[in-house]
Amino acid sequence: MNQEILDEITNRPYSSIKERIQDKMQKRIIEIGSKGVIFGLSGGIDSAVIASLSKGVETSNPSIYQATAIIMPDSKISPEDETNDALKIVDSLNLNYKLVDINQIHKEYYKVLEPEDRALGNLRARIRKNILYYYANSKNLTVLGSSDKSEHLIGYFTKFGDGAADILPIASLYKTQVRELARFLGVPDHIISKKSSPNLWPNHIAESEIGASYEEIDAILYCINDKHMTHDETSSKTQIAPELVDKIYQLYKKSEHKRITAEIL
Amino acid sequence: MNQEILDEITNRPYSSIKERIQDKMQKRIIEIGSKGVIFGLSGGIDSAVIASLSKGVETSNPSIYQATAIIMPDSKISPEDETNDALKIVDSLNLNYKLVDINQIHKEYYKVLEPEDRALGNLRARIRKNILYYYANSKNLTVLGSSDKSEHLIGYFTKFGDGAADILPIASLYKTQVRELARFLGVPDHIISKKSSPNLWPNHIAESEIGASYEEIDAILYCINDKHMTHDETSSKTQIAPELVDKIYQLYKKSEHKRITAEIL
Repeated sequence: MNQEILDEITNRPYSSIKERIQDKMQKRIIEIGSKGVIFGLSGGIDSAVIASLSKGVETSNPSIYQATAIIMPDSKISPEDETNDALKIVDSLNLNYKLVDINQIHKEYYKVLEPEDRALGNLRARIRKNILYYYANSKNLTVLGSSDKSEHLIGYFTKFGDGAADILPIASLYKTQVRELARFLGVPDHIISKKSSPNLWPNHIAESEIGASYEEIDAILYCINDKHMTHDETSSKTQIAPELVDKIYQLYKKSEHKRITAEIL
Repeated sequence: MNQEILDEITNRPYSSIKERIQDKMQKRIIEIGSKGVIFGLSGGIDSAVIASLSKGVETSNPSIYQATAIIMPDSKISPEDETNDALKIVDSLNLNYKLVDINQIHKEYYKVLEPEDRALGNLRARIRKNILYYYANSKNLTVLGSSDKSEHLIGYFTKFGDGAADILPIASLYKTQVRELARFLGVPDHIISKKSSPNLWPNHIAESEIGASYEEIDAILYCINDKHMTHDETSSKTQIAPELVDKIYQLYKKSEHKRITAEIL
């Protein structure tokens, strides 16, 4: 693929992007009247960036803005490295956190439902969201979702699972932009460079499941969604095969129902 | 309160309303490409109406539209009468159904979360939604939500719990209109006349929690939302105290975040 288009996507003023997101995070919490924010921390890049941005707001406004991370591995399938990375993040940021193993809860659903691999995977994301909203309810906190723009636009999230939140702080940034913002924020290199995983089943790698790299996904979405190019123009501009352009576009189109509210008949 | 305004709200052509909703239910399922619908059946009026409408569509199109009800009591707190009413509904409609007791699942969350009554209540609604989406995932079904317009507008539902659905078939109808539609559909009288309950905790009565009758809620919302009247005009037209008009309006305003998608910063 064409490197120039990637440079065009990632060459952004990350200092002012950070300021903008943090300003809005703070203003919205004051408007909502909640005591702060809560979010799931997986050990992956997106939630590491959310953690860093939230902690920054808490540090400047500790009396009106608490940031709490919930680490929710399923001890049966989540890689230990991932949980350790999450723990290192809370340690380095000195972040308020809780660790909840969802394995026994997941097992209890399993006992009464007929097993189906994909549904069991998506259920993990929904259990995690129940726990976040449990704390949001009981402690008057606002739930932050960690979807980035790439995943948001192609619907690479579980509906009413990780896709469910009150605020999406980084859904205006493509994954390749989140990586640059992460570098700017000082997120450790190995968290930035490791393969993204939703951890819904063992060895779950995002790019393998989608069938494209985030560089390709972002270049395609940027041309189609931001620049309103046709598929042919996108393929020519990105030097990506038309089949892949079309595949990503189809993911975008078919996932629209995940980005809108329920239809009222 | 003024009876005339209630007559104005409830005097509708329920035969054509039924036709319209069922037509849309069928068309949307074909467009979505799913095999049919799934919904929670509590034994209350809203889900009884959803059950009747869905079964009607299934009966005319059995090859393209299956309707499945999931009855999900928490055996610790749900009244037995309520579950029996749900079972009578599936029996009288000859509806495909499953019965899943959520008590053990709820207990498993309870073991790892700090107890808080309201959050534990809302968690029940979220567990029920997880189960509906589990079946929706594994059997390619579309989730119907049973919110009516009264509950939808004042936010009387659990965010990402019973409020989470793909389609809301009766959210265009106020509760007092749903009662008339239920009569038209032949829903048994005792289901229409019993007090509405979300069954999130023992003896949970909707009108007591809200602090107004559905007749009052509907009259107020109808004047403010549908007729764009001021609060004074609403109070004068409905003969309801200005304090209650304002209370219902505040519920409407403050629950806006429950009716929109997550904010992207």
